[in-house]
Amino acid sequence: MTIETGARLARMRAAAPLVHCITNYVAMNVAANVLLAAGASPAMIHAPEEAAAFAPLAGALTINIGTLSTPWLAGMTGAAAAAGAAGRPWALDPVAVFATAFRRDAAARLVALRPTVIRGNASEILALAGAEAAGRGADAGDAVEAAAEPAAALARRTGAVVAVTGPVDLVTDGARVARVANGAPVMPQVTALGCALTGLVGAFLAAGDDPFADTVAALAYYGLAGERAAGGAAGPGSFAVGFIDALAALDPAALDAGARLS
Amino acid sequence: MTIETGARLARMRAAAPLVHCITNYVAMNVAANVLLAAGASPAMIHAPEEAAAFAPLAGALTINIGTLSTPWLAGMTGAAAAAGAAGRPWALDPVAVFATAFRRDAAARLVALRPTVIRGNASEILALAGAEAAGRGADAGDAVEAAAEPAAALARRTGAVVAVTGPVDLVTDGARVARVANGAPVMPQVTALGCALTGLVGAFLAAGDDPFADTVAALAYYGLAGERAAGGAAGPGSFAVGFIDALAALDPAALDAGARLS
Amino acid sequence: MTIETGARLARMRAAAPLVHCITNYVAMNVAANVLLAAGASPAMIHAPEEAAAFAPLAGALTINIGTLSTPWLAGMTGAAAAAGAAGRPWALDPVAVFATAFRRDAAARLVALRPTVIRGNASEILALAGAEAAGRGADAGDAVEAAAEPAAALARRTGAVVAVTGPVDLVTDGARVARVANGAPVMPQVTALGCALTGLVGAFLAAGDDPFADTVAALAYYGLAGERAAGGAAGPGSFAVGFIDALAALDPAALDAGARLS
Repeated sequence: MTIETGARLARMRAAAPLVHCITNYVAMNVAANVLLAAGASPAMIHAPEEAAAFAPLAGALTINIGTLSTPWLAGMTGAAAAAGAAGRPWALDPVAVFATAFRRDAAARLVALRPTVIRGNASEILALAGAEAAGRGADAGDAVEAAAEPAAALARRTGAVVAVTGPVDLVTDGARVARVANGAPVMPQVTALGCALTGLVGAFLAAGDDPFADTVAALAYYGLAGERAAGGAAGPGSFAVGFIDALAALDPAALDAGARLS
Repeated sequence: MTIETGARLARMRAAAPLVHCITNYVAMNVAANVLLAAGASPAMIHAPEEAAAFAPLAGALTINIGTLSTPWLAGMTGAAAAAGAAGRPWALDPVAVFATAFRRDAAARLVALRPTVIRGNASEILALAGAEAAGRGADAGDAVEAAAEPAAALARRTGAVVAVTGPVDLVTDGARVARVANGAPVMPQVTALGCALTGLVGAFLAAGDDPFADTVAALAYYGLAGERAAGGAAGPGSFAVGFIDALAALDPAALDAGARLS
Repeated sequence: MTIETGARLARMRAAAPLVHCITNYVAMNVAANVLLAAGASPAMIHAPEEAAAFAPLAGALTINIGTLSTPWLAGMTGAAAAAGAAGRPWALDPVAVFATAFRRDAAARLVALRPTVIRGNASEILALAGAEAAGRGADAGDAVEAAAEPAAALARRTGAVVAVTGPVDLVTDGARVARVANGAPVMPQVTALGCALTGLVGAFLAAGDDPFADTVAALAYYGLAGERAAGGAAGPGSFAVGFIDALAALDPAALDAGARLS
């Protein structure tokens, strides 16, 4: 897999894109700090009164349904439609889509607005793909590989790049498939790191030219920063702090050297 | 007081329970990280459209009224009723219940839904018990002991275990009383640690068999982690980071050795 | 510029004022921890059902429109009117007021309720002053100085002290002007530090007697804590932690010695 991850990171940093994030209450602060540390500029704007007006002002939009409600869903669909109409890329994070009918319906409405990228864990992607929702346990072990075929089918059906994240991430556009082996076991012990990753994918999309390659680059950069931070951490608290430092410190050459793609 | 705190921590970790948390905006991220570090799995879901549907899927529910609003109150009452109907334990955190009529009315509605545990500081428990609300100053010094009798009366009236937290915590089911002397003076300087503790009580309830003993174990574990973290902290910022590390690192044997119950 | 910054910090700590904060979802946790570390007591209460009832109970009110929505705006205007009627000072933070019509209208309604202090970056203050909104790039380099005259005009028109924060902050009441050169380059890389600063200004207003001098003292204290923390930081993550420690550790004498006012 030859994707110039470092060049894509450098391009994102040079552009310092404004990323419109509609994300959940748990993740907002983390996502903003991840984007700032990486070199992008986050804007958290969700209200139906302004989300659609704001979306075209940003380089990309990201939508995460973690703490969903009806008024927020209106802001999400308005922003996604406006981003699409303005030619802006956008990424969807279908948090716990398998858990309630409210989430399934919301995610279906958002998928119909044609996200550029869909990022989730294996159980979320399986549920979105209409494959059997295997529940929480599905995210352990080989769950990502088990989601490979449903993810590819979801990509072909929706036109989105689909990223299934886990111990080894899988990215597919329905034709190409890449795997990213970067990351650290402590990462799932820190809340909202998956949600914040979706924001970061938005930054790479805003500055990039190939959503498949840009998503792979974002995932490798994120995972490698996690590896760097895990080495110096005494637990999930100090890891979370060092991870932000590592995102800011990691340079393109180190990313090229450390990315583990296949 | 002979409560096997270590065994209860071990049982909670072995169960890794899913805890449904409806908490305030300030506390959400902290509560999620506390639960993850402790070994549980948090889910923050509040909307009236899905909170009641989700509650039976989790092992326990916790409700905190910190940043209350009318739509959230609808989600809270729906979730509490659904948890009760499904036989799930749930914990109530009546933040600043003394401050406005809106909070008093909301708390009264929630108490009527029969929480398994009510956790608050002395002024909150006094207000909920109908004792004279002594205001903010009530939480200094001997406030917890002054709340002992109203707390026991509240427990008998509602059927809940009542936990009054402060420099020394007091837990009562109306008959039994336990005091937990663990903790560190810096803890009130970090926002949302009380709110996050209520989430942790939910995790112990989900995995436990005696709400009184499980609440005591959760409080001792939390306070002892605070003591560990305070030793290496340069202030409230580094304390907050070390506290999450300490929650993850503390093992059942150390909890049995360090718990200070009476 | 002879403003006793240390004495004003000491007075704020002695008062330990209750500060009513209506701020955005990204900033709430950070603002609460900044206020606690500084020695004040934050209360985050926003709902229209109670915000106006609560405002007179606090020593000051701060309003930040970062993640604005219609129901929150109702809480904001109710609280601001109640604070004004009760003679409580209040501070306005017009986040991204230039971005959408919804924000412009909301900010205009809030300014009409006569805030004691308005704090923003240069592009926000320019937009509020009716000067040409120069967009994001406006905050680099000499943007603060370019906003000096519009800020003074805004102060004269509204009766508010206006603070334009950036590499060097500028504070004006329309007659007096002070500049605060404290701070660290890493601060804009951490989300919500500007929003949290507005909360801190509220604490100084609650305990103070001269909004102009109290705002200058708050800014100097904040910037100096940033300088202290930047020295020991490996990046924006560890900076954010050390910054909270530094706010708690900095004493009045050190502030008098380190404040760089002109």
